[in-house]
Amino acid sequence: MSLQGKEIQEMHKKYILQSWGKAGQDVLPVEKAKGIYFWDYDGNKYADMASLLVCSNLGHELPEIVDAIKEQADKMCFMAPAYASEPKSRLAKMLVEAAGEDTYKRVFFTNAGAESNENAIKMARMVTGRTKIFSCYRSYHGATLGSSNASGDWRRFAAEIGGANGFVKFMNPHMYRDGYTKGKDDAEVTKKALADLDLQLRYEGTNNVAAILMESIVGANGVILPPDGYMEGVRALCDKYGILMICDEVMAGFFRTGKWFAWQNFDFKPDMITFAKGVTCGYVPLGGVIVNKKIAEYFEENVLQCGLTYSGHTLACAAGVAAMNYYKEHKIGEHVAEMHEIVSAFMNEMAEKHKCIGEARCIGLFGALEVVKNKETREPMQEYGVPGPVMPWIFAELKKRGFATFGRENFIEICPPLIITKEELEEYLPILDEVLTMVDEKYCD
Amino acid sequence: MSLQGKEIQEMHKKYILQSWGKAGQDVLPVEKAKGIYFWDYDGNKYADMASLLVCSNLGHELPEIVDAIKEQADKMCFMAPAYASEPKSRLAKMLVEAAGEDTYKRVFFTNAGAESNENAIKMARMVTGRTKIFSCYRSYHGATLGSSNASGDWRRFAAEIGGANGFVKFMNPHMYRDGYTKGKDDAEVTKKALADLDLQLRYEGTNNVAAILMESIVGANGVILPPDGYMEGVRALCDKYGILMICDEVMAGFFRTGKWFAWQNFDFKPDMITFAKGVTCGYVPLGGVIVNKKIAEYFEENVLQCGLTYSGHTLACAAGVAAMNYYKEHKIGEHVAEMHEIVSAFMNEMAEKHKCIGEARCIGLFGALEVVKNKETREPMQEYGVPGPVMPWIFAELKKRGFATFGRENFIEICPPLIITKEELEEYLPILDEVLTMVDEKYCD
Repeated sequence: MSLQGKEIQEMHKKYILQSWGKAGQDVLPVEKAKGIYFWDYDGNKYADMASLLVCSNLGHELPEIVDAIKEQADKMCFMAPAYASEPKSRLAKMLVEAAGEDTYKRVFFTNAGAESNENAIKMARMVTGRTKIFSCYRSYHGATLGSSNASGDWRRFAAEIGGANGFVKFMNPHMYRDGYTKGKDDAEVTKKALADLDLQLRYEGTNNVAAILMESIVGANGVILPPDGYMEGVRALCDKYGILMICDEVMAGFFRTGKWFAWQNFDFKPDMITFAKGVTCGYVPLGGVIVNKKIAEYFEENVLQCGLTYSGHTLACAAGVAAMNYYKEHKIGEHVAEMHEIVSAFMNEMAEKHKCIGEARCIGLFGALEVVKNKETREPMQEYGVPGPVMPWIFAELKKRGFATFGRENFIEICPPLIITKEELEEYLPILDEVLTMVDEKYCD
Repeated sequence: MSLQGKEIQEMHKKYILQSWGKAGQDVLPVEKAKGIYFWDYDGNKYADMASLLVCSNLGHELPEIVDAIKEQADKMCFMAPAYASEPKSRLAKMLVEAAGEDTYKRVFFTNAGAESNENAIKMARMVTGRTKIFSCYRSYHGATLGSSNASGDWRRFAAEIGGANGFVKFMNPHMYRDGYTKGKDDAEVTKKALADLDLQLRYEGTNNVAAILMESIVGANGVILPPDGYMEGVRALCDKYGILMICDEVMAGFFRTGKWFAWQNFDFKPDMITFAKGVTCGYVPLGGVIVNKKIAEYFEENVLQCGLTYSGHTLACAAGVAAMNYYKEHKIGEHVAEMHEIVSAFMNEMAEKHKCIGEARCIGLFGALEVVKNKETREPMQEYGVPGPVMPWIFAELKKRGFATFGRENFIEICPPLIITKEELEEYLPILDEVLTMVDEKYCD
């Protein structure tokens, strides 16, 4: 490795506490990034097939966003929440319009996704005067105390030392894992799952439930596509019991699924939309909550007991305005629909061809491959919550070949930047095919 | 107001959920900022005498930070936590060095102060296996569920709908408010306060207490200077019972008190230091936790169950490196010491001269004036938790005259950017004198 790369790696190893890992490990130092690629200090190029953590929706170093940041930096990097600034005002308007001005009215800005969910939870409790927050086991909403207690996966556990009250989990359907077939058993699964949820809500006391918080499409737990009618059914339960519905669009939003927000693929509307990531593509940290008219009007009459120094951060909002303009002007939704055809066809082919792929799931450019030991029994390559060596081996083999992505227990995320081209897909997808062939031979029954 | 300013104000009024306020109000639209000043759209100039929310320590649009942001924006705005990047590595090293490499070892990066305290609390619970977090009533640590439940002031209440477990409050001394005199009664107050805390710790079960979280100097609740020996005494209690001490340096850090960290004014060392604000002066959101060797080494052996997409955000860390270089190279600590003499002398003069000023408190350029109705009885202009019209009137009168600051119940914060000059102070401090004269006449007994 180059001397500079080595030095940066050594300092990281020595001084950084690593997210979700042990400190003191070697990690790859990255020198630069552009479009769908990034490079290490030895000039090795990687295609960013997960948009980092499903955030760099418009790829890296998009000139339109970079220029907006530089221009705003020259003018005013930051002005406090008590004052209006042009980027904050403009971005709030654009977000409400993207969500639909017929239903939505106001935006509360935060720094990122965890805080967005924290504030949505807090608002739901203030508005309803109720305490309980329902959320899914198969979910992730962030790592602060509230967002983490609302999260379903193991990343919640440390936040449960001490813990927080009023967080109730329910098991959201995962058709393949639960033994069903998407496109065939949807009605049955939806009916059963909604009946279970309805029963659980009544056992918890419907009058005590402030909100149901759900990712519109579960992301970091494997792009789990809900059975047809399920999300609409949850909305109907919310209406029945006066419960607010919060959709977490932190990963799924901003054209990841081909629409501004993933819930726009379904036939329902949440009361609150939490967002982050794609709003600025990660160039500057930004998140927030879009609320409907009823909630907005509540906080015209009542003090919003939420706040943070950087709410509506000027530089971040300028990046957000540039990103939203780009999504719109470059018809990213249409491009995603076209690229989806290629990715989806390829993923289905992988599921047909490879012993190790149990199911391919993809909406827009939000995709995951379910890795199995045995296709007949659907035995996962790694059971939930039981670590093993195969998945890390897969990610390492992919990365060696310049294909960077992530996943967990037994899935591989395929979530490239939305600006990826047909040519780039045709160059990189075959690498996945190659590695899966090795998995078939090495690890399948 | 100019058409553009009016439009920005209208959009803010229509689309924004306002931090700690009601939505739908008129707020001042700000066009630009430079040095210690910012301007509205009608060209009115305001001296930023609170560094916004005590964050713009190096003032606005400092060329060194702006250039660093623009340079990094051209190279790589963001790379995920799983990778090393030059700004992240360099900033972590600089932070550990500023805190003292003899004691401190690693940094966990967050987006801002609330998340910094969230993660410090989580780490303390993981490291000790204990649940309870002690913190002060006279405090503010953020508005997410954990940081808010740790906060003492009224901004905690909404986070208590549902609530969180294991947060225990104690009453930290406020010498003036409690009826004592700083510089005279310190030993007595310290002795009593520590005995009370020791007793409360034993009533809560010392083996159940993970950490004591305190602002090194209480900031947003009125720059409360602890009695001599108090902070050292809390440290001694922590040592006695195996409790970790977390110092919140979100406001007090980065030369606000003349030192890198405010605890460096005392004779003790915390186990963890939480920071935000001054690390980038708010130009890009950034926060974090600096941990000592013992905690760092725990997380070399054990997985850190903390994480966030933007941990070690590249653009934010680049701004941090530039800010830290500026603090160092321009000897900001020495400049603060010089300006402190002017501000402190002025504040003491105000306390002498005005009926409405009960006490002047200032360390470095971290100052607050205690506004009273009656100097003899020390009756505050507004009681804690009881809103009234006088303080908002004071802030409005100051702002009319180009002196922008904030405060609450009965104090006025005097926390200008640390780069403020003698000439600027001489121009703006008399405005305060003028308004206080009006307060004396209008509102004092």
